[in-house]
Amino acid sequence: MNINSTLKTLLNHRSIRKYSSQKIEKEKLDYIIQAACNGSTMGNLQLYSIIITEDAEMKAKAAPFHFNQPMVTEAPLLLTFCADLNRFSKYCQYREAETTAYDNLQSYHWAVTDALIAAQNACVAAESLGLGICWLGTITFNCDKFIELFELPPRVFPIASISFGYPKETPELTDKLPHETFIHYEKYKDYSEEAINKIYSDKEQHPNTLALFEENNLNNLARIFTERRYKKEDNEYFSKILVEVLKKQKFLDSY
Amino acid sequence: MNINSTLKTLLNHRSIRKYSSQKIEKEKLDYIIQAACNGSTMGNLQLYSIIITEDAEMKAKAAPFHFNQPMVTEAPLLLTFCADLNRFSKYCQYREAETTAYDNLQSYHWAVTDALIAAQNACVAAESLGLGICWLGTITFNCDKFIELFELPPRVFPIASISFGYPKETPELTDKLPHETFIHYEKYKDYSEEAINKIYSDKEQHPNTLALFEENNLNNLARIFTERRYKKEDNEYFSKILVEVLKKQKFLDSY
Repeated sequence: MNINSTLKTLLNHRSIRKYSSQKIEKEKLDYIIQAACNGSTMGNLQLYSIIITEDAEMKAKAAPFHFNQPMVTEAPLLLTFCADLNRFSKYCQYREAETTAYDNLQSYHWAVTDALIAAQNACVAAESLGLGICWLGTITFNCDKFIELFELPPRVFPIASISFGYPKETPELTDKLPHETFIHYEKYKDYSEEAINKIYSDKEQHPNTLALFEENNLNNLARIFTERRYKKEDNEYFSKILVEVLKKQKFLDSY
Repeated sequence: MNINSTLKTLLNHRSIRKYSSQKIEKEKLDYIIQAACNGSTMGNLQLYSIIITEDAEMKAKAAPFHFNQPMVTEAPLLLTFCADLNRFSKYCQYREAETTAYDNLQSYHWAVTDALIAAQNACVAAESLGLGICWLGTITFNCDKFIELFELPPRVFPIASISFGYPKETPELTDKLPHETFIHYEKYKDYSEEAINKIYSDKEQHPNTLALFEENNLNNLARIFTERRYKKEDNEYFSKILVEVLKKQKFLDSY
């Protein structure tokens, strides 16, 4: 089978963290937005909003909430995808329909799904146009700060933030686990100790991992993650904020 | 600007609900999985699992939980994408690292994001290969039933289920709201009554909407959604189940 150019784009993805100063052409941004808005969506409701950040002052304000990752101020464009049930609930309000039907966790999941489909479509579109992208996982950590910064009303939640720009680097493709790792035929096959060892043994020998060992002065990937990068106490601290925010945004009202 | 073939694939998306009986070639499925697994992922952790459903008996069992949408039994392939923190937590366990660092709602959001990026990549890859897809929103409604059916252990949650197959229909592209609807420059611009009327007025005149009015014997889209399709009491019923499931799967343990 000949591999087509869409597959090439998908299989050639790597996160880009260094960008040239070149602005993104309006025509390209329009296609990115159009691709985002043409993805699958629950009941054709399109439950998302997209915040465009191009202003240097807004980037400077956002930077500390993204833990000062340099892409935030160096990329020409950030797009923040929000799960949005505000717009549809307002529509209900102005049509004399029930306005609180979607103030709950199921509806939140529909909107999160819609927003993430749109976000990934935007990434694929951008990459097909020669741009590089990087997801900023920090958005949900500091969701309370971003809600304030972007002035998001209740029923809106910032689920994804992504930097876009022309690449000033071509990093190697990251090492991935073998595909069989993720596939389960008909039912989930839980992982034995032997299976875990087999899955992770190559990764543990990979030059990227060995570099991490040296950098962290630890010879164990699990400990690097749990003791340095994403620690239990930090995750629990930010989870408490997240629960409070979901309540405040009306997605966890009744619990 | 010449529109490239990846953009064509993205802009040509429509959900396909009728499939021919032709099986999907193994080579194509391999590319779909490869594209799914090459998307962005939190800390390169790849926090997802993919359940492959091809067996007729499993489809028949899944069908009622998908509210008997015909795609479930008629499509040759269903892929269910799960947020998966079980595999990595097991890895931590077998490397004598903290195993409960990711039993929280932040980590759930990382895994949901990873799984949905993978899912949308799979869809784009499939469409580039001439296949049709349809997202089954029902997966989160009956998440408890799917967890039982697929035997998902704690720390795994089924976030997306998608049917794949060769299309036996070519539906028109669905009507979408104008792109300006979703875009906010620098800060969120909330919607006034006038803005809502402007946004939805074309949609309310669209033949698809008029057909819905006739079908539902209601002349108001907001009421059709809130009184017929996704009713407050149903959403709240399924949200209670979802909260219980997230607790049971260890993603809401401490609240």
